[in-house]
Amino acid sequence: MIIVKIGGGKEININGIAKDLSELDEKYIIVHGANHYRDELAQKLGKPKKIITSVSGYSSVFSDEDAIEMIMMSYSGLRNKRIVEAMLKNNINAIGLSGIDGRLISGIRNTGIRVKEGDKLKIIRDFSGKPKKINKSLITLLLDNNYVPVISIPILDENNNAINTENDDVVRILKEELNVGTVINLIEAPGFLGDKNDPSTLIKKISKQELEKKEKQVDGRMKRKMLAIRGFFEKGECVVIISDGRVQNPIKDALSGKGTTIE
Amino acid sequence: MIIVKIGGGKEININGIAKDLSELDEKYIIVHGANHYRDELAQKLGKPKKIITSVSGYSSVFSDEDAIEMIMMSYSGLRNKRIVEAMLKNNINAIGLSGIDGRLISGIRNTGIRVKEGDKLKIIRDFSGKPKKINKSLITLLLDNNYVPVISIPILDENNNAINTENDDVVRILKEELNVGTVINLIEAPGFLGDKNDPSTLIKKISKQELEKKEKQVDGRMKRKMLAIRGFFEKGECVVIISDGRVQNPIKDALSGKGTTIE
Repeated sequence: MIIVKIGGGKEININGIAKDLSELDEKYIIVHGANHYRDELAQKLGKPKKIITSVSGYSSVFSDEDAIEMIMMSYSGLRNKRIVEAMLKNNINAIGLSGIDGRLISGIRNTGIRVKEGDKLKIIRDFSGKPKKINKSLITLLLDNNYVPVISIPILDENNNAINTENDDVVRILKEELNVGTVINLIEAPGFLGDKNDPSTLIKKISKQELEKKEKQVDGRMKRKMLAIRGFFEKGECVVIISDGRVQNPIKDALSGKGTTIE
Repeated sequence: MIIVKIGGGKEININGIAKDLSELDEKYIIVHGANHYRDELAQKLGKPKKIITSVSGYSSVFSDEDAIEMIMMSYSGLRNKRIVEAMLKNNINAIGLSGIDGRLISGIRNTGIRVKEGDKLKIIRDFSGKPKKINKSLITLLLDNNYVPVISIPILDENNNAINTENDDVVRILKEELNVGTVINLIEAPGFLGDKNDPSTLIKKISKQELEKKEKQVDGRMKRKMLAIRGFFEKGECVVIISDGRVQNPIKDALSGKGTTIE
Protein backbone atom coordinates (compact mmCIF):
# COMPACT_ATOMS: atom_id res chain seq x y z
CA MET A 1 0.00 0.00 0.00
CA ILE A 2 1.22 3.47 -0.97
CA ILE A 3 0.18 6.90 0.26
CA VAL A 4 0.60 9.57 -2.39
CA LYS A 5 0.75 12.97 -0.79
CA ILE A 6 0.21 15.72 -3.33
CA GLY A 7 1.47 19.14 -2.32
CA GLY A 8 -0.79 22.19 -2.47
CA GLY A 9 1.22 24.20 -4.99
CA LYS A 10 -0.11 25.30 -8.34
CA GLU A 11 2.76 23.83 -10.36
CA ILE A 12 2.02 20.24 -9.34
CA ASN A 13 1.26 18.18 -12.46
CA ILE A 14 -2.02 16.51 -11.49
CA ASN A 15 -2.59 14.97 -14.92
CA GLY A 16 0.91 13.48 -14.92
CA ILE A 17 0.29 12.02 -11.47
CA ALA A 18 -3.07 10.58 -12.57
CA LYS A 19 -1.55 9.04 -15.72
CA ASP A 20 1.27 7.43 -13.74
CA LEU A 21 -1.11 6.13 -11.09
CA SER A 22 -3.36 4.53 -13.71
CA GLU A 23 -0.43 2.26 -14.58
CA LEU A 24 0.42 1.36 -11.00
CA ASP A 25 -0.30 -2.16 -9.76
CA GLU A 26 -0.23 -1.53 -6.02
CA LYS A 27 -3.16 -0.14 -3.98
CA TYR A 28 -2.84 3.50 -2.97
CA ILE A 29 -4.67 6.38 -1.39
CA ILE A 30 -4.19 10.07 -2.09
CA VAL A 31 -3.86 12.88 0.44
CA HIS A 32 -3.65 16.34 -1.03
CA GLY A 33 -3.03 19.93 -0.04
CA ALA A 34 -4.40 23.12 -1.57
CA ASN A 35 -2.28 25.83 0.01
CA HIS A 36 -1.94 27.85 -3.15
CA TYR A 37 -5.69 27.74 -3.82
CA ARG A 38 -6.61 28.61 -0.26
CA ASP A 39 -4.25 31.58 -0.22
CA GLU A 40 -5.47 32.78 -3.59
CA LEU A 41 -9.11 32.54 -2.49
CA ALA A 42 -8.38 34.20 0.86
CA GLN A 43 -6.68 37.06 -0.90
CA LYS A 44 -9.52 37.53 -3.39
CA LEU A 45 -12.07 37.48 -0.58
CA GLY A 46 -10.00 39.91 1.46
CA LYS A 47 -9.57 37.42 4.29
CA PRO A 48 -5.84 36.80 4.66
CA LYS A 49 -4.45 34.26 7.13
CA LYS A 50 -4.57 35.47 10.72
CA ILE A 51 -1.33 35.01 12.61
CA ILE A 52 -1.45 35.23 16.38
CA THR A 53 1.41 35.31 18.83
CA SER A 54 1.15 33.61 22.18
CA VAL A 55 2.57 35.09 25.40
CA SER A 56 5.46 32.65 25.05
CA GLY A 57 6.31 34.30 21.72
CA TYR A 58 5.20 31.42 19.51
CA SER A 59 3.40 32.45 16.29
CA SER A 60 0.78 30.36 14.54
CA VAL A 61 -2.04 30.54 12.03
CA PHE A 62 -5.41 31.15 13.66
CA SER A 63 -8.15 28.98 12.12
CA ASP A 64 -11.36 30.85 12.86
CA GLU A 65 -14.71 30.05 11.26
CA ASP A 66 -13.81 32.00 8.13
CA ALA A 67 -10.59 30.04 7.80
CA ILE A 68 -12.47 26.74 8.03
CA GLU A 69 -14.90 27.88 5.33
CA MET A 70 -11.92 28.82 3.16
CA ILE A 71 -10.53 25.30 3.69
CA MET A 72 -13.88 23.74 2.81
CA MET A 73 -14.03 25.75 -0.40
CA SER A 74 -10.43 25.34 -1.56
CA TYR A 75 -9.44 21.91 -0.20
CA SER A 76 -12.70 19.88 -0.01
CA GLY A 77 -14.28 21.77 -2.88
CA LEU A 78 -12.13 23.13 -5.68
CA ARG A 79 -8.93 21.14 -5.39
CA ASN A 80 -10.42 17.83 -4.27
CA LYS A 81 -12.94 17.76 -7.11
CA ARG A 82 -10.42 18.83 -9.75
CA ILE A 83 -8.07 16.04 -8.62
CA VAL A 84 -10.92 13.50 -8.63
CA GLU A 85 -11.88 14.68 -12.14
CA ALA A 86 -8.29 14.24 -13.38
CA MET A 87 -8.16 10.74 -11.88
CA LEU A 88 -11.48 9.75 -13.48
CA LYS A 89 -10.22 10.96 -16.86
CA ASN A 90 -7.38 8.47 -16.39
CA ASN A 91 -9.71 5.63 -15.55
CA ILE A 92 -9.02 5.72 -11.81
CA ASN A 93 -12.08 5.11 -9.68
CA ALA A 94 -11.48 8.12 -7.44
CA ILE A 95 -13.76 9.19 -4.62
CA GLY A 96 -13.08 12.51 -2.93
CA LEU A 97 -13.57 12.78 0.81
CA SER A 98 -12.74 15.29 3.48
CA GLY A 99 -11.66 14.04 6.87
CA ILE A 100 -15.13 14.71 8.26
CA ASP A 101 -17.02 12.56 5.74
CA GLY A 102 -18.16 9.37 7.42
CA ARG A 103 -15.88 10.40 10.33
CA LEU A 104 -12.95 9.39 8.12
CA ILE A 105 -10.33 11.17 10.24
CA SER A 106 -11.09 12.38 13.73
CA GLY A 107 -9.00 13.93 16.43
CA ILE A 108 -8.70 16.33 19.33
CA ARG A 109 -9.12 20.08 19.08
CA ASN A 110 -6.30 22.26 20.39
CA THR A 111 -7.08 23.69 23.81
CA GLY A 112 -6.26 27.27 22.96
CA ILE A 113 -3.49 29.83 22.90
CA ARG A 114 -2.68 32.25 25.69
CA VAL A 115 -2.49 35.77 24.35
CA LYS A 116 -2.17 39.21 25.85
CA GLU A 117 -4.90 41.76 25.15
CA GLY A 118 -3.79 45.05 26.60
CA ASP A 119 -2.98 44.14 30.18
CA LYS A 120 -5.20 41.10 30.23
CA LEU A 121 -4.23 37.50 29.60
CA LYS A 122 -6.80 35.48 27.76
CA ILE A 123 -7.08 32.15 26.06
CA ILE A 124 -8.39 32.10 22.54
CA ARG A 125 -9.32 28.90 20.84
CA ASP A 126 -9.50 28.22 17.12
CA PHE A 127 -10.73 25.32 15.02
CA SER A 128 -7.51 23.34 14.76
CA GLY A 129 -6.21 20.15 16.26
CA LYS A 130 -4.48 16.82 15.77
CA PRO A 131 -5.79 13.66 14.10
CA LYS A 132 -5.97 10.65 16.45
CA LYS A 133 -8.13 8.07 14.73
CA ILE A 134 -9.17 6.96 11.26
CA ASN A 135 -12.38 5.21 10.24
CA LYS A 136 -10.51 2.14 9.07
CA SER A 137 -13.65 0.23 8.15
CA LEU A 138 -14.74 2.99 5.73
CA ILE A 139 -11.33 3.18 4.02
CA THR A 140 -11.18 -0.62 3.81
CA LEU A 141 -14.73 -0.76 2.45
CA LEU A 142 -13.78 1.66 -0.32
CA LEU A 143 -10.41 0.04 -1.13
CA ASP A 144 -11.94 -3.46 -1.17
CA ASN A 145 -14.48 -2.22 -3.69
CA ASN A 146 -11.74 -0.71 -5.87
CA TYR A 147 -12.30 2.93 -5.07
CA VAL A 148 -9.32 5.23 -4.59
CA PRO A 149 -9.91 7.63 -1.69
CA VAL A 150 -8.73 11.20 -2.38
CA ILE A 151 -8.51 12.81 1.03
CA SER A 152 -8.12 16.36 2.31
CA ILE A 153 -8.75 18.51 5.37
CA PRO A 154 -10.82 19.44 7.35
CA ILE A 155 -10.96 16.62 9.90
CA LEU A 156 -13.40 16.14 12.79
CA ASP A 157 -12.83 17.03 16.44
CA GLU A 158 -14.25 15.30 19.56
CA ASN A 159 -17.39 17.48 19.38
CA ASN A 160 -17.95 16.93 15.68
CA ASN A 161 -16.58 20.28 14.61
CA ALA A 162 -14.73 20.52 11.31
CA ILE A 163 -11.16 21.53 12.19
CA ASN A 164 -7.91 22.34 10.45
CA THR A 165 -4.86 20.14 10.89
CA GLU A 166 -1.45 19.46 9.33
CA ASN A 167 -1.56 17.25 6.24
CA ASP A 168 1.63 15.53 7.39
CA ASP A 169 -0.18 14.42 10.55
CA VAL A 170 -3.03 13.07 8.42
CA VAL A 171 -0.53 11.08 6.35
CA ARG A 172 1.15 9.82 9.49
CA ILE A 173 -2.01 8.45 11.09
CA LEU A 174 -3.09 6.81 7.82
CA LYS A 175 0.37 5.29 7.52
CA GLU A 176 0.20 3.91 11.06
CA GLU A 177 -3.31 2.46 10.74
CA LEU A 178 -3.09 0.99 7.25
CA ASN A 179 -0.42 -1.33 5.94
CA VAL A 180 1.58 1.38 4.20
CA GLY A 181 5.06 0.54 2.92
CA THR A 182 5.73 3.68 0.91
CA VAL A 183 4.88 7.37 1.27
CA ILE A 184 5.45 9.46 -1.87
CA ASN A 185 5.57 13.13 -1.06
CA LEU A 186 5.23 15.25 -4.22
CA ILE A 187 6.40 18.82 -3.85
CA GLU A 188 7.50 21.79 -5.95
CA ALA A 189 11.21 20.92 -5.74
CA PRO A 190 13.34 17.99 -6.93
CA GLY A 191 13.47 16.56 -3.40
CA PHE A 192 15.42 17.43 -0.28
CA LEU A 193 18.08 19.97 -1.20
CA GLY A 194 21.28 20.67 0.72
CA ASP A 195 20.89 24.29 -0.36
CA LYS A 196 17.25 25.13 -0.97
CA ASN A 197 18.15 27.57 -3.75
CA ASP A 198 20.29 25.10 -5.67
CA PRO A 199 18.55 22.08 -7.27
CA SER A 200 21.94 20.47 -7.95
CA THR A 201 22.35 19.90 -4.21
CA LEU A 202 19.64 17.22 -4.20
CA ILE A 203 20.36 14.60 -1.57
CA LYS A 204 19.45 11.20 -2.98
CA LYS A 205 19.41 9.17 0.20
CA ILE A 206 18.95 9.93 3.87
CA SER A 207 18.93 7.28 6.55
CA LYS A 208 16.35 7.75 9.24
CA GLN A 209 19.24 8.24 11.67
CA GLU A 210 20.44 11.23 9.65
CA LEU A 211 17.01 12.86 9.57
CA GLU A 212 17.43 14.80 12.80
CA LYS A 213 20.74 16.23 11.66
CA LYS A 214 19.33 17.33 8.29
CA GLU A 215 16.38 18.90 10.05
CA LYS A 216 18.76 21.30 11.77
CA GLN A 217 20.26 22.41 8.45
CA VAL A 218 17.00 23.69 6.99
CA ASP A 219 14.33 26.17 7.94
CA GLY A 220 10.72 27.16 7.39
CA ARG A 221 8.33 24.70 5.82
CA MET A 222 11.09 22.18 4.99
CA LYS A 223 12.09 21.99 8.65
CA ARG A 224 8.53 21.20 9.68
CA LYS A 225 8.31 18.67 6.87
CA MET A 226 11.46 16.88 8.08
CA LEU A 227 10.12 16.78 11.62
CA ALA A 228 6.88 15.27 10.34
CA ILE A 229 8.77 12.70 8.28
CA ARG A 230 10.71 11.64 11.34
CA GLY A 231 7.35 10.88 12.90
CA PHE A 232 6.56 8.45 10.07
CA PHE A 233 9.29 6.15 11.36
CA GLU A 234 8.14 6.04 14.96
CA LYS A 235 5.65 3.21 14.42
CA GLY A 236 6.64 0.55 11.90
CA GLU A 237 8.94 0.58 8.91
CA CYS A 238 8.34 2.44 5.67
CA VAL A 239 10.09 4.20 2.81
CA VAL A 240 9.49 7.92 2.33
CA ILE A 241 10.20 9.47 -1.05
CA ILE A 242 10.24 13.25 -1.40
CA SER A 243 10.06 13.98 -5.07
CA ASP A 244 9.21 16.51 -7.77
CA GLY A 245 5.49 16.89 -8.47
CA ARG A 246 6.03 19.26 -11.39
CA VAL A 247 7.63 16.83 -13.86
CA GLN A 248 6.00 14.80 -16.62
CA ASN A 249 6.03 11.53 -14.65
CA PRO A 250 5.94 12.43 -10.97
CA ILE A 251 5.10 8.93 -9.67
CA LYS A 252 7.39 6.98 -12.03
CA ASP A 253 10.27 9.33 -11.25
CA ALA A 254 9.65 9.03 -7.52
CA LEU A 255 9.54 5.22 -7.63
CA SER A 256 12.65 5.02 -9.80
CA GLY A 257 14.62 6.98 -7.22
CA LYS A 258 14.85 10.44 -8.78
CA GLY A 259 13.94 12.31 -5.59
CA THR A 260 15.14 11.89 -2.03
CA THR A 261 14.63 8.47 -0.51
CA ILE A 262 14.50 8.12 3.26
CA GLU A 263 14.54 4.66 4.81
CA MET B 1 -36.56 5.04 1.21
CA ILE B 2 -36.81 8.84 1.31
CA ILE B 3 -34.96 11.50 -0.63
CA VAL B 4 -34.61 14.72 1.33
CA LYS B 5 -33.91 17.59 -1.01
CA ILE B 6 -32.60 20.61 0.86
CA GLY B 7 -32.95 23.92 -0.95
CA GLY B 8 -29.97 26.22 -1.41
CA GLY B 9 -31.31 29.19 0.52
CA LYS B 10 -29.65 30.65 3.58
CA GLU B 11 -32.75 30.46 5.79
CA ILE B 12 -32.99 26.68 5.63
CA ASN B 13 -32.70 25.26 9.16
CA ILE B 14 -30.00 22.63 8.68
CA ASN B 15 -29.75 21.81 12.39
CA GLY B 16 -33.50 21.31 12.63
CA ILE B 17 -33.39 19.01 9.62
CA ALA B 18 -30.50 17.03 11.12
CA LYS B 19 -32.25 16.69 14.47
CA ASP B 20 -35.46 15.48 12.84
CA LEU B 21 -33.59 13.03 10.62
CA SER B 22 -31.74 11.55 13.60
CA GLU B 23 -35.15 10.36 14.87
CA LEU B 24 -36.31 8.94 11.56
CA ASP B 25 -36.56 5.16 11.17
CA GLU B 26 -36.58 4.91 7.39
CA LYS B 27 -33.45 5.00 5.20
CA TYR B 28 -32.85 8.27 3.37
CA ILE B 29 -30.37 10.14 1.24
CA ILE B 30 -29.87 13.87 1.07
CA VAL B 31 -29.51 16.02 -2.04
CA HIS B 32 -28.77 19.67 -1.41
CA GLY B 33 -28.47 22.96 -3.20
CA ALA B 34 -26.27 25.95 -2.41
CA ASN B 35 -27.67 28.68 -4.61
CA HIS B 36 -27.38 31.38 -2.01
CA TYR B 37 -23.76 30.47 -1.22
CA ARG B 38 -22.77 30.23 -4.85
CA ASP B 39 -24.29 33.62 -5.65
CA GLU B 40 -22.68 35.21 -2.60
CA LEU B 41 -19.26 33.78 -3.51
CA ALA B 42 -19.64 34.76 -7.16
CA GLN B 43 -20.50 38.28 -6.15
CA LYS B 44 -17.55 38.56 -3.76
CA LEU B 45 -15.19 37.20 -6.40
CA GLY B 46 -16.63 39.57 -8.99
CA LYS B 47 -17.77 36.70 -11.19
CA PRO B 48 -21.54 36.99 -11.52
CA LYS B 49 -23.61 34.40 -13.41
CA LYS B 50 -23.29 34.70 -17.16
CA ILE B 51 -26.60 34.66 -18.96
CA ILE B 52 -26.54 33.98 -22.69
CA THR B 53 -29.36 34.27 -25.16
CA SER B 54 -29.66 31.84 -28.05
CA VAL B 55 -30.75 32.87 -31.55
CA SER B 56 -34.13 31.41 -30.74
CA GLY B 57 -34.43 33.92 -27.90
CA TYR B 58 -34.04 31.45 -25.07
CA SER B 59 -31.94 32.67 -22.12
CA SER B 60 -29.90 30.40 -19.87
CA VAL B 61 -27.04 30.42 -17.39
CA PHE B 62 -23.67 29.75 -19.02
CA SER B 63 -21.55 27.38 -16.94
CA ASP B 64 -17.99 28.12 -17.98
CA GLU B 65 -14.90 26.86 -16.15
CA ASP B 66 -15.18 29.65 -13.58
CA ALA B 67 -18.80 28.71 -12.89
CA ILE B 68 -17.85 25.07 -12.32
CA GLU B 69 -15.13 26.13 -9.88
CA MET B 70 -17.68 28.27 -8.07
CA ILE B 71 -19.96 25.22 -7.83
CA MET B 72 -17.10 23.08 -6.51
CA MET B 73 -16.34 25.67 -3.84
CA SER B 74 -19.87 26.47 -2.72
CA TYR B 75 -21.77 23.19 -3.30
CA SER B 76 -19.15 20.41 -2.92
CA GLY B 77 -17.04 22.43 -0.51
CA LEU B 78 -18.68 24.89 1.84
CA ARG B 79 -22.30 23.79 1.91
CA ASN B 80 -21.74 20.04 1.61
CA LYS B 81 -19.26 19.95 4.47
CA ARG B 82 -21.33 22.22 6.73
CA ILE B 83 -24.36 19.97 6.18
CA VAL B 84 -22.26 16.84 6.86
CA GLU B 85 -20.93 18.48 10.04
CA ALA B 86 -24.47 19.29 11.24
CA MET B 87 -25.55 15.69 10.56
CA LEU B 88 -22.55 14.27 12.45
CA LYS B 89 -23.36 16.51 15.43
CA ASN B 90 -26.77 14.81 15.45
CA ASN B 91 -25.29 11.33 15.34
CA ILE B 92 -26.03 10.77 11.66
CA ASN B 93 -23.30 8.90 9.82
CA ALA B 94 -23.17 11.36 6.94
CA ILE B 95 -20.77 11.14 4.04
CA GLY B 96 -20.60 14.07 1.61
CA LEU B 97 -20.18 13.32 -2.07
CA SER B 98 -20.41 15.29 -5.28
CA GLY B 99 -21.89 13.62 -8.33
CA ILE B 100 -18.41 13.03 -9.74
CA ASP B 101 -17.07 11.10 -6.72
CA GLY B 102 -16.87 7.44 -7.59
CA ARG B 103 -18.87 8.33 -10.75
CA LEU B 104 -21.89 8.65 -8.47
CA ILE B 105 -24.02 10.52 -11.01
CA SER B 106 -23.07 10.66 -14.65
CA GLY B 107 -24.77 12.06 -17.69
CA ILE B 108 -24.52 13.72 -21.07
CA ARG B 109 -23.15 17.19 -21.66
CA ASN B 110 -25.34 19.66 -23.51
CA THR B 111 -24.32 20.04 -27.15
CA GLY B 112 -24.17 23.81 -27.13
CA ILE B 113 -26.19 26.92 -27.73
CA ARG B 114 -26.44 28.78 -31.03
CA VAL B 115 -25.67 32.45 -30.52
CA LYS B 116 -25.13 35.43 -32.77
CA GLU B 117 -21.81 37.25 -32.58
CA GLY B 118 -22.09 40.32 -34.73
CA ASP B 119 -23.23 38.87 -38.05
CA LYS B 120 -21.89 35.41 -37.37
CA LEU B 121 -23.72 32.45 -35.97
CA LYS B 122 -21.71 30.28 -33.67
CA ILE B 123 -22.24 27.46 -31.24
CA ILE B 124 -20.87 27.88 -27.77
CA ARG B 125 -20.73 25.00 -25.36
CA ASP B 126 -20.61 25.17 -21.60
CA PHE B 127 -20.10 22.61 -18.85
CA SER B 128 -23.71 21.64 -18.25
CA GLY B 129 -25.84 18.65 -19.02
CA LYS B 130 -28.36 16.08 -17.86
CA PRO B 131 -27.86 13.16 -15.46
CA LYS B 132 -28.54 9.76 -17.07
CA LYS B 133 -27.09 7.16 -14.72
CA ILE B 134 -26.25 6.65 -11.07
CA ASN B 135 -23.60 4.39 -9.57
CA LYS B 136 -26.15 2.26 -7.80
CA SER B 137 -23.58 -0.15 -6.36
CA LEU B 138 -21.75 2.72 -4.62
CA ILE B 139 -24.93 4.17 -3.09
CA THR B 140 -26.07 0.70 -2.04
CA LEU B 141 -22.63 -0.05 -0.56
CA LEU B 142 -22.85 3.09 1.56
CA LEU B 143 -26.48 2.63 2.61
CA ASP B 144 -25.91 -1.04 3.48
CA ASN B 145 -23.06 0.04 5.73
CA ASN B 146 -25.26 2.65 7.44
CA TYR B 147 -23.79 5.75 5.84
CA VAL B 148 -26.09 8.57 4.77
CA PRO B 149 -24.98 10.02 1.41
CA VAL B 150 -25.16 13.82 1.24
CA ILE B 151 -25.07 14.62 -2.47
CA SER B 152 -24.55 17.78 -4.51
CA ILE B 153 -23.49 18.93 -7.96
CA PRO B 154 -21.30 18.81 -10.05
CA ILE B 155 -21.98 15.54 -11.89
CA LEU B 156 -19.84 13.80 -14.51
CA ASP B 157 -20.28 13.95 -18.30
CA GLU B 158 -19.45 11.26 -20.88
CA ASN B 159 -15.85 12.52 -21.11
CA ASN B 160 -15.33 12.70 -17.36
CA ASN B 161 -15.76 16.45 -17.12
CA ALA B 162 -17.37 17.92 -14.02
CA ILE B 163 -20.58 19.58 -15.22
CA ASN B 164 -23.46 21.58 -13.82
CA THR B 165 -26.98 20.21 -13.84
CA GLU B 166 -30.39 20.82 -12.26
CA ASN B 167 -30.78 19.41 -8.77
CA ASP B 168 -34.33 18.37 -9.59
CA ASP B 169 -32.97 16.15 -12.35
CA VAL B 170 -30.51 14.61 -9.88
CA VAL B 171 -33.37 13.86 -7.49
CA ARG B 172 -35.40 12.41 -10.32
CA ILE B 173 -32.75 9.93 -11.46
CA LEU B 174 -32.05 8.86 -7.88
CA LYS B 175 -35.78 8.40 -7.36
CA GLU B 176 -36.07 6.27 -10.49
CA GLU B 177 -33.07 4.06 -9.73
CA LEU B 178 -33.55 3.53 -6.01
CA ASN B 179 -36.69 2.34 -4.29
CA VAL B 180 -37.88 5.81 -3.26
CA GLY B 181 -41.41 6.21 -1.93
CA THR B 182 -41.18 9.78 -0.70
CA VAL B 183 -39.41 12.93 -1.86
CA ILE B 184 -39.32 15.76 0.68
CA ASN B 185 -38.50 19.06 -0.94
CA LEU B 186 -37.53 21.67 1.67
CA ILE B 187 -37.76 25.25 0.46
CA GLU B 188 -37.97 28.80 1.79
CA ALA B 189 -41.77 28.89 1.68
CA PRO B 190 -44.58 26.97 3.43
CA GLY B 191 -45.17 24.86 0.31
CA PHE B 192 -46.90 25.48 -2.98
CA LEU B 193 -48.78 28.76 -2.76
CA GLY B 194 -51.75 29.82 -4.90
CA ASP B 195 -50.40 33.37 -4.64
CA LYS B 196 -46.64 33.33 -4.11
CA ASN B 197 -46.80 36.50 -2.00
CA ASP B 198 -49.44 35.17 0.36
CA PRO B 199 -48.51 32.26 2.65
CA SER B 200 -52.18 31.80 3.58
CA THR B 201 -52.83 30.50 0.04
CA LEU B 202 -50.93 27.29 0.73
CA ILE B 203 -52.38 24.42 -1.25
CA LYS B 204 -52.34 21.31 0.92
CA LYS B 205 -52.92 18.67 -1.71
CA ILE B 206 -52.38 18.44 -5.43
CA SER B 207 -53.13 15.34 -7.45
CA LYS B 208 -50.61 14.51 -10.10
CA GLN B 209 -53.34 15.15 -12.66
CA GLU B 210 -53.65 18.73 -11.40
CA LEU B 211 -49.91 19.39 -11.61
CA GLU B 212 -49.91 20.58 -15.20
CA LYS B 213 -52.70 23.04 -14.51
CA LYS B 214 -50.93 24.46 -11.42
CA GLU B 215 -47.73 24.78 -13.42
CA LYS B 216 -49.47 27.26 -15.71
CA GLN B 217 -50.54 29.45 -12.78
CA VAL B 218 -47.01 30.13 -11.53
CA ASP B 219 -43.81 31.54 -12.97
CA GLY B 220 -40.03 31.65 -12.54
CA ARG B 221 -38.37 29.06 -10.36
CA MET B 222 -41.64 27.63 -9.08
CA LYS B 223 -42.78 26.89 -12.63
CA ARG B 224 -39.58 24.95 -13.35
CA LYS B 225 -39.94 23.17 -10.02
CA MET B 226 -43.48 22.05 -10.88
CA LEU B 227 -42.31 20.79 -14.27
CA ALA B 228 -39.54 18.81 -12.57
CA ILE B 229 -41.98 17.36 -10.05
CA ARG B 230 -44.24 16.18 -12.86
CA GLY B 231 -41.21 14.23 -14.08
CA PHE B 232 -40.99 12.39 -10.74
CA PHE B 233 -44.26 10.64 -11.56
CA GLU B 234 -43.30 9.41 -15.02
CA LYS B 235 -41.63 6.24 -13.75
CA GLY B 236 -43.17 4.57 -10.71
CA GLU B 237 -45.31 5.88 -7.88
CA CYS B 238 -44.16 8.22 -5.13
CA VAL B 239 -45.29 10.97 -2.81
CA VAL B 240 -43.73 14.41 -3.17
CA ILE B 241 -43.93 16.83 -0.26
CA ILE B 242 -42.98 20.47 -0.78
CA SER B 243 -42.50 21.93 2.65
CA ASP B 244 -40.94 24.70 4.71
CA GLY B 245 -37.21 24.24 5.43
CA ARG B 246 -37.04 27.27 7.72
CA VAL B 247 -39.15 25.97 10.61
CA GLN B 248 -38.03 24.27 13.81
CA ASN B 249 -38.96 20.76 12.64
CA PRO B 250 -38.77 20.75 8.86
CA ILE B 251 -38.89 16.95 8.41
CA LYS B 252 -41.52 16.24 11.07
CA ASP B 253 -43.72 19.02 9.70
CA ALA B 254 -43.31 17.73 6.15
CA LEU B 255 -44.19 14.16 7.13
CA SER B 256 -47.20 15.28 9.19
CA GLY B 257 -48.64 17.04 6.16
CA LYS B 258 -47.91 20.71 6.89
CA GLY B 259 -46.66 21.49 3.37
CA THR B 260 -48.04 20.61 -0.02
CA THR B 261 -48.47 16.91 -0.71
CA ILE B 262 -48.55 15.70 -4.29
CA GLU B 263 -49.52 12.12 -5.00
